[in-house]
This record gives sequence, C-alpha cells and structure tokens, in this order.
Amino acid sequence: MPVVSDSELNRRRHDILEGARRCFAEYGYEGATVRRLEEATGKSRGAIFHHFGDKETLFLALAREDAARQAEVVAREGLVQVMRDMLNHPERHDWLSTRLEITRMLRTDPAFRAQWQQHQAVLDEAVTQRLRSNAAADRMRDDVPVSVLHRYLETMMEGFIALLASGGSTEDLDRVLDLVEETVRGRS
Amino acid sequence: MPVVSDSELNRRRHDILEGARRCFAEYGYEGATVRRLEEATGKSRGAIFHHFGDKETLFLALAREDAARQAEVVAREGLVQVMRDMLNHPERHDWLSTRLEITRMLRTDPAFRAQWQQHQAVLDEAVTQRLRSNAAADRMRDDVPVSVLHRYLETMMEGFIALLASGGSTEDLDRVLDLVEETVRGRS
Repeated sequence: MPVVSDSELNRRRHDILEGARRCFAEYGYEGATVRRLEEATGKSRGAIFHHFGDKETLFLALAREDAARQAEVVAREGLVQVMRDMLNHPERHDWLSTRLEITRMLRTDPAFRAQWQQHQAVLDEAVTQRLRSNAAADRMRDDVPVSVLHRYLETMMEGFIALLASGGSTEDLDRVLDLVEETVRGRS
Repeated sequence: MPVVSDSELNRRRHDILEGARRCFAEYGYEGATVRRLEEATGKSRGAIFHHFGDKETLFLALAREDAARQAEVVAREGLVQVMRDMLNHPERHDWLSTRLEITRMLRTDPAFRAQWQQHQAVLDEAVTQRLRSNAAADRMRDDVPVSVLHRYLETMMEGFIALLASGGSTEDLDRVLDLVEETVRGRS
C-alpha cells in the first residue's frame, strides 16, 4: 500500500469539502445524496466517508469552516462586518439556505444540536471577546448587559441568513446594518 | 347528491387546515406526505385536494392565516408585539421551522415566491400603515427612512423565527425586543 503524506491527506480533505459545499448549496441538505456528493467531489463514497464518517459530519465540518472564518472577521471588525460580507457575496447565498434546512434537526435531534453548538463555539467566543473588549474600551453602550447585546446581534444574523437565503431584495440592508451598529454602540 | 351548505363547506375547510397545520409542524414540509395529511385531517386525499388543489396551495393557505392574524396584532400593537407573542407561545414553534424549510423554494421557484409574497401582502401592508401612522403621530424617530425601519423589523422577525424554530434558549429575547423597540422609536 502506498504511503500517503499528510499534505496529500489534507489536500484530499480540502477537495472533498469544496465539492461538498457546492453540492449542498445546489441541492440542499436532504438533496445532497451520496451519489451527488461523489459527482461533486470526484471521489468515491468510500473515500468521502473514510475522511468524514457520514453526511452529518461532513456538513458540520463545513459549518466549522464558516464559523472559523467568521470568527476571524469578528475579532478584527465585529459581527456586523460578517453580515456586511454576507450581503456583498451573493455567490454564497445558495449555501446559506442549507443552514436553514437543518433547523428542524437542531430542535429534534439533541446529539446533532450539541455537535452544532460545539462547532459554532469558536464564533460565539469571538463575539463575546469582541463585545467585552469594546465595553472595556468604552466603545459600547453600558446601559444594556453584554449578554443581551450578544443575543441581539445573534438574532439579527439569523434574520440576515434567512433573508439572503430566500433570494429577496437586498435593498436597504446596508442601512439596516448601520442601525444595528448604532444600537449596539449607543448613540452619543 | 346531497346539497352541502356553505357553513358545512367552511367547517370542512377549517378542519383540513387545522389538521394540515399539525401535520406540517410535526413532519415538516417535505415530510408531510399525502398519506400523513389524510391521517392528520381525517379526510381523504380527494376531499383535501378538492378544497386546496395541491400541497403547496394548502401550505400557502396556512401562511395566509398566519399573516392575517399577525396583521391584526400589528395594527393594534406593532410588529414587535407579534414577536413577543411568538416568544410566549412555544407550542407554535414547531410550525415555524416549516417556514424555514421553504426558503430554498422561495429562491429557486419564482412562481411560488410570487404567491408567497401575495399571501404575505396583508402583513406587509399592516406594518407599512402602522409605521406611517406612528411617524405622523411623532411616536417614531425621523432620522431614518420608514422603509429602512420596515426592513429592520422584517429582518429581526426572520431572525426570531429562525431562533425559536431551532429550539434554542429564549433567555434574554424579551430584552432583545426592548432594544428593537427602542431602536425604531428612537431614544429621547
């Protein structure tokens, strides 16, 4: 059996993730069958599930990639900037609706929910850190608990995902984000 | 053939809607098969589709019921109150996730999207009226266009539906709504 280097393994993992993302975006979570995942990744089911166990794990790995990328943006520029990026990248909106399809699983499948939350932890932590440091630097209103402002931003982000995923007009959404920013900072 | 009175027809329609709502809430849009709709409504497929044509039409009829009920609340108390009602009625959260499942259809099926928007028109109109009359009565900030405030509320409502449908904690969400209310009214 040939020895496969770590970098080769990473490349294969990366190829599978890229293909799977396109597949989920096009067909949705349910619609991304094993056959379609094979076509989109150019890999056999054996190879795909060798790396990712099952479809759920594959999907969660993609969600973790998103969360990690978003956490970096949050650390530098905050969660509102993550929403501005969503608005400015319509090519990613197809993928967003997949996230809505799993809502029922989040509610009805506690094991999936626990895993999902674990995969989102890096983003949650980044938002908490950002809000704390803004509060410490007096760049944020202090009449509302940080936990409430966190929930507020989180709710808005869910709304953004839903609106963009449904393919409606994005008119005025940049100004909506200005309002959100102002609400969190407080008006002087 | 026996003559069926209008009130009897209305009663049958009502029974089908009630059963179908439970069925969609339990199994989701895709999972609500014709067989399950028959079981949930206690009616044959012939009877169901005599009244509602197809599953899509049946679902849209339920969405219209929601929109009409919400429009009444908006006229009296505003859209934030609709969200407060959602928060206070966890027994309706199962139904909400069905609304997220149709997001992909909204984006990919223009005919469905057009019908959906038509069914939501009564709610949109109520929000517009409410915001206009609040603006006229000086109960609202005037430094942001009404259209932006409308989009802001709409985005928040989508986020609320997504959060509640995913079965997460509702902690602090009442205080999030206080923030939303304050943002729209403007702080004095």
